[in-house]
Amino acid sequence: MDFQLAIIGGGPAGYSAAEAAGKAGLSVVLFEKNSLGGVCLNEGCIPTKALLYSAKVLDGARNSSKYAIKTEGVSFDLSKIVSRKQKVVRKLVLGIKNKMNESGVTVVNGEAYIQDKNTIKCGDEVYKCENLILCTGGKTFIPPINGIDNVAYWTHKEALECKDLPESLAIIGGGVIGMEFASYFCSLGVKVSVVEMTSEILGGIDKELASLLRTEYTKKGISFLLDTKVTEICNDGDSCKIIIKYRSGDKDGFLESDKVLVSAGRHAYTEGYGLENLSLEFTSKHKIMVDANSMKTSVDGVYACGDITGFSMLAHTAVREAEVAVNHICGIDDKMSYKAIPGVVYTNPEVASVGVTEEMAKTVGLDYKVVKLTLSYAGRFVSENEGVNGVCKIITDSENHIIGAHILGNPASELIVIAGMMIEEGRKLEDFRKYVFPHPTVGEIFREF
Amino acid sequence: MDFQLAIIGGGPAGYSAAEAAGKAGLSVVLFEKNSLGGVCLNEGCIPTKALLYSAKVLDGARNSSKYAIKTEGVSFDLSKIVSRKQKVVRKLVLGIKNKMNESGVTVVNGEAYIQDKNTIKCGDEVYKCENLILCTGGKTFIPPINGIDNVAYWTHKEALECKDLPESLAIIGGGVIGMEFASYFCSLGVKVSVVEMTSEILGGIDKELASLLRTEYTKKGISFLLDTKVTEICNDGDSCKIIIKYRSGDKDGFLESDKVLVSAGRHAYTEGYGLENLSLEFTSKHKIMVDANSMKTSVDGVYACGDITGFSMLAHTAVREAEVAVNHICGIDDKMSYKAIPGVVYTNPEVASVGVTEEMAKTVGLDYKVVKLTLSYAGRFVSENEGVNGVCKIITDSENHIIGAHILGNPASELIVIAGMMIEEGRKLEDFRKYVFPHPTVGEIFREF
Repeated sequence: MDFQLAIIGGGPAGYSAAEAAGKAGLSVVLFEKNSLGGVCLNEGCIPTKALLYSAKVLDGARNSSKYAIKTEGVSFDLSKIVSRKQKVVRKLVLGIKNKMNESGVTVVNGEAYIQDKNTIKCGDEVYKCENLILCTGGKTFIPPINGIDNVAYWTHKEALECKDLPESLAIIGGGVIGMEFASYFCSLGVKVSVVEMTSEILGGIDKELASLLRTEYTKKGISFLLDTKVTEICNDGDSCKIIIKYRSGDKDGFLESDKVLVSAGRHAYTEGYGLENLSLEFTSKHKIMVDANSMKTSVDGVYACGDITGFSMLAHTAVREAEVAVNHICGIDDKMSYKAIPGVVYTNPEVASVGVTEEMAKTVGLDYKVVKLTLSYAGRFVSENEGVNGVCKIITDSENHIIGAHILGNPASELIVIAGMMIEEGRKLEDFRKYVFPHPTVGEIFREF
Repeated sequence: MDFQLAIIGGGPAGYSAAEAAGKAGLSVVLFEKNSLGGVCLNEGCIPTKALLYSAKVLDGARNSSKYAIKTEGVSFDLSKIVSRKQKVVRKLVLGIKNKMNESGVTVVNGEAYIQDKNTIKCGDEVYKCENLILCTGGKTFIPPINGIDNVAYWTHKEALECKDLPESLAIIGGGVIGMEFASYFCSLGVKVSVVEMTSEILGGIDKELASLLRTEYTKKGISFLLDTKVTEICNDGDSCKIIIKYRSGDKDGFLESDKVLVSAGRHAYTEGYGLENLSLEFTSKHKIMVDANSMKTSVDGVYACGDITGFSMLAHTAVREAEVAVNHICGIDDKMSYKAIPGVVYTNPEVASVGVTEEMAKTVGLDYKVVKLTLSYAGRFVSENEGVNGVCKIITDSENHIIGAHILGNPASELIVIAGMMIEEGRKLEDFRKYVFPHPTVGEIFREF
């Protein structure tokens, strides 16, 4: 079977590329060995948001007295929380299936194997293609901790499906995934410990905001071990607990926990599907080299989008990369820009970030300024966030162009793109005032600078 | 006492102008006869949002089972709801006082009287000014209904302070104010009827969205009487109820209600402070004529901002107008643009709107297109809105430039400015895709078109 475009991987990059190309009139085949939607939809962004929303409703009901609302006997049904999550995923997977149909995309449910850049084998079938987009995504990185293979640790997959709460949970890795699960299980009453190798949680996020969030969650009962490296994990036969041995500075210590969640990062999925037959150039072991003007790899007619390019491990980056690749194939002028890629942590409160952080600006020696306001400058935030504060921090260059924005406080996730648009367009801080923001909204904070 | 700028009215236009001018180094006097913050902060936008948020928390607790959270005995303490509202207002009024101090503004708490454009009297004191900005705001319009003066009707003021719930409430006027109070009292269990003179609630809002919202609130128990004009109001001595007689088409009818809220519109406040001494030109009885390039009136050195210009009766319009006026006084290039003024109705779900509606486009004979998506295209909306749907509707011109956007669904209020920015910049529908929206967010809906 001949196609103008073959796509391997049906996650956000893959289905977005397929939809765009199909709509543009190309004949498209999309290979997905599991479920359409990829990690993001089936076991990542979406299911975590469904679970976290139940946790938010639970917290909301428990804390309702702040708004003069009385509730009694607040409880939850974990099995129903998980099945609602599954229902949300099913609905959205169906939505993607429909999009593929509407766009005339041939979806092949199976493991693709690349024979050469124009030949993909799947089962007994051989597919010929003029162009190939690789969107194989990423997988959980399991750090080589002594004893880890002898312990029934969780990754995000098992955490998502948990219907029988452990009393305690140790989370190895305080990045975005680790913190979202920490937040979820903390709301459900689990005693959570987060062990983080570096000096602060949330990796690339603004350090000040990460620290403020950590303080909030410390108050909620999570314990954090920073600058702490797990050295060994083992089962304690007597207590049925897992022992997590660690080294912090020059001291050794250990934690006992009922369950362990490993969230120490993710890396690209590059093996087992014949990638080696393409002789692509890599920028590092798990990162395929691409030209950001087109998302083209070093081999003509072969494109790579999403986690395997290594630019960011985020669904929305993958989607945009996919659009750029398809536009390049269709001869439409477009190129990828990485200067305004937002990142969100869906804790409660949320943290969202776009562009340069203060730490990055320092590291590369930029001439930068920081302006910062508490969200209490926004009347709506005050009206709806009793006893909670938030921060909006903006980084500008020496000429006042916005180069970074960082928000702690709800609904940061929905607001950050406003700053992202300004960064993408090269706007200055005072330019926020050219736009009329509705009053009262939290977003008005941008006009207050 | 001599000032470079005198401002009459301490609402959003007044305090924004004062802050901007003070920061720009002008000597500024601001007159306010009541509390800083004006109607918006003291008895409008902010207090309603505080009350509505308590109602939202109440609804959230009652409907928590949709997210597998169980609550029992959900109740509320109205007196505490109202006192929390008051606390929010106090905090924000204090914030404005601080801003005035920090900007070096002289605040005079009293009734100003204009003797001429350079002379303002307040109490026994006379203030000389080089420039004058009029920001006297608006007041509730009480329609000349037979018998209304003999009935103890509510305006928004009494509704905000209500600590003893009526069993039933008739709301005359289904505009934004009417619908926000309808939503609030409906959540608290009051039997609400909305009597609207025109064929749909929410005046200038997209008719389709207004109708969808009305359907939602009908399900929640509110009754709507459209195309219905109140002809007489009177007390029923026996039942202690208020009788609202109306005419709908060629039929007469009546309603009985414990309380009546009149929310039939607002108009500018133009009397009692010597406005007549300025010999300004008016565009209509309650609208001072201004040049949108500067917010200057027909008299040199006299500016008007906010409700008294009649462009919109919205706080955020007033704020932007004030900035333009101060920039003009300071010789900074700026001008007012009215093409992307958002409007929000803080019901639950929210409705937000910016730019041209389908109805406006039809009326003026524009060559326009409508594109529309349900919010279920946004994975986050699906994750967080169990059993609820929403709509995003965009109006473009024949060349695909965005000229209007309308959203029903939370958090429409915070998202609408994204479309507003695009309208202000003259962008096309496909330009949304140039920006990377974080996934999953409701805002991503804009990229789906």
